[in-house]
Amino acid sequence: MDLTYILSIAATLAFSVTGVLAARIQQLDIIGVTVVGVVTAVGGGTIRDIILDVPVFWIVDGRYLLAATLAALLTFAFNDLIHRGYRWFLYMDALGVALFAALAVMKTLALGLGSAHAVVMGVITGIGGGIIRDVLLDRPTLIVSRELYATPICLGVGLQLALLKLNVLSGQQAVIAGVAAIFTLRASAIYFQWQMPDLLTLSNRPVASNPEE
Amino acid sequence: MDLTYILSIAATLAFSVTGVLAARIQQLDIIGVTVVGVVTAVGGGTIRDIILDVPVFWIVDGRYLLAATLAALLTFAFNDLIHRGYRWFLYMDALGVALFAALAVMKTLALGLGSAHAVVMGVITGIGGGIIRDVLLDRPTLIVSRELYATPICLGVGLQLALLKLNVLSGQQAVIAGVAAIFTLRASAIYFQWQMPDLLTLSNRPVASNPEE
Amino acid sequence: MDLTYILSIAATLAFSVTGVLAARIQQLDIIGVTVVGVVTAVGGGTIRDIILDVPVFWIVDGRYLLAATLAALLTFAFNDLIHRGYRWFLYMDALGVALFAALAVMKTLALGLGSAHAVVMGVITGIGGGIIRDVLLDRPTLIVSRELYATPICLGVGLQLALLKLNVLSGQQAVIAGVAAIFTLRASAIYFQWQMPDLLTLSNRPVASNPEE
Repeated sequence: MDLTYILSIAATLAFSVTGVLAARIQQLDIIGVTVVGVVTAVGGGTIRDIILDVPVFWIVDGRYLLAATLAALLTFAFNDLIHRGYRWFLYMDALGVALFAALAVMKTLALGLGSAHAVVMGVITGIGGGIIRDVLLDRPTLIVSRELYATPICLGVGLQLALLKLNVLSGQQAVIAGVAAIFTLRASAIYFQWQMPDLLTLSNRPVASNPEE
Repeated sequence: MDLTYILSIAATLAFSVTGVLAARIQQLDIIGVTVVGVVTAVGGGTIRDIILDVPVFWIVDGRYLLAATLAALLTFAFNDLIHRGYRWFLYMDALGVALFAALAVMKTLALGLGSAHAVVMGVITGIGGGIIRDVLLDRPTLIVSRELYATPICLGVGLQLALLKLNVLSGQQAVIAGVAAIFTLRASAIYFQWQMPDLLTLSNRPVASNPEE
Repeated sequence: MDLTYILSIAATLAFSVTGVLAARIQQLDIIGVTVVGVVTAVGGGTIRDIILDVPVFWIVDGRYLLAATLAALLTFAFNDLIHRGYRWFLYMDALGVALFAALAVMKTLALGLGSAHAVVMGVITGIGGGIIRDVLLDRPTLIVSRELYATPICLGVGLQLALLKLNVLSGQQAVIAGVAAIFTLRASAIYFQWQMPDLLTLSNRPVASNPEE
């Protein structure tokens, strides 16, 4: 069991926990909560694998399913306790996003695909589960929140790919650099409540005048 | 044409009808209604087959598509009449859920996968179509309703798997036991308006005190 | 590079633009906008390819991804200008829908599947991206709007298939007929604000009397 695998499982646990905590305001029962936790944990990687036409990772290795289910049940059981540490779990979720995205890049490149596909797969794997969670829970998806979610992934994955293509780092080292970059950016966004500057935000308020709408 | 096949088609019809009836308050046109009916009927099995990487069942056998389309059109034509029998169709839908879930278990086991995967595929097949229907119709998904939907599937499928693993019943007999268990639980939930006890419901109201939120 | 390919790329551009414009009221940042634009552009075809179990088109040919990304970024940069021409882009989107649907029919038939499957794939390819866009942006899906969206596709694809089956036209000619029919119907629906007549609209208001609900 290498470090990558252990971290993947840790990321799965973190995603499942955040899925369950997001379900708190909806008064789901224990089975519904588990469904949401598992889907949040494995959703992004599932979409990635289906689009890449490779076997779905949790079908191949059932331990991801087990980890997500146990994490969901434990979060259900100790939800008040865990909710008190919610902020801490946001950072664990950020680590999960970072790890899943950086690993998705390697998986995509290993199939002979290029950088553009690698970035797309990084984003899908990083935010796919969270988007399905939001849809299941009938709340606005993370895409429409002004939180920085996809941006840290794009920037970190871009760095990872640049280091790889320029032969500065080995694949394994580039993963670590990518994870570090994504995590740092996402964690900073959480801590400092960063939002994109207005210049990089689409607005329906016209600069000068807007005759329509 | 064996009994399983006939019942699968019946379940498809029932799902399509409930999809159309769910669309009633949205004033969809006849084509929109058909889209919703068909998606409700085949959605769960489609996700299951894609994740299992086997040919999608309604691509292989177009009769499922035909059944769902006809059911949707007939429900459109006689919607007031059928709506009067809505409660009766809820039980037909419950039978559909039971049958699809129990058959998904066999399909999953036949691929050499284990019990955990079988339970997950049972749940996906049983509620996947209904969730897509709710998303299309822009209403809260069945996951956030307090109705018992996934729970009867988990319990019934669990019984089915236990009977199989303990060699108490043959595969065919275990399917019947699973269908009976899921249907009985779901039908009882409808009839008695069962909800999960508070103990098994995630709450954001703390037991003692919650300093946050 | 044949005409079909050029038009497919044009349709991809148009879909991406409409995706970004739909995101205007949500104040997304540049990365979120790009995600929405790309998903809108390639979503429908992705679902089609996954269900048909053929390689996903934008994995095979990265230029679709490039086109969608560039269109999204340019729309972000010039969004006020482009929004002023929004109505014009609705027609471009209608052309995209028409082309994607008619081409999906040929792709489905080429796999040896029948007319029913071809219609379903036409509808999925034509409206799938728009539905995912609506879900991501947390707004009612185009299915529940009373706009005619799936109907022009069904009618136009039906014409295309009839002309093909009756050997009136070659495959290429039938595509053109299908595109023309879908586009004309959809463009008319936009221009004249057509809605389905009440007779073909599902209503929860009973004709005579409705004791329930």
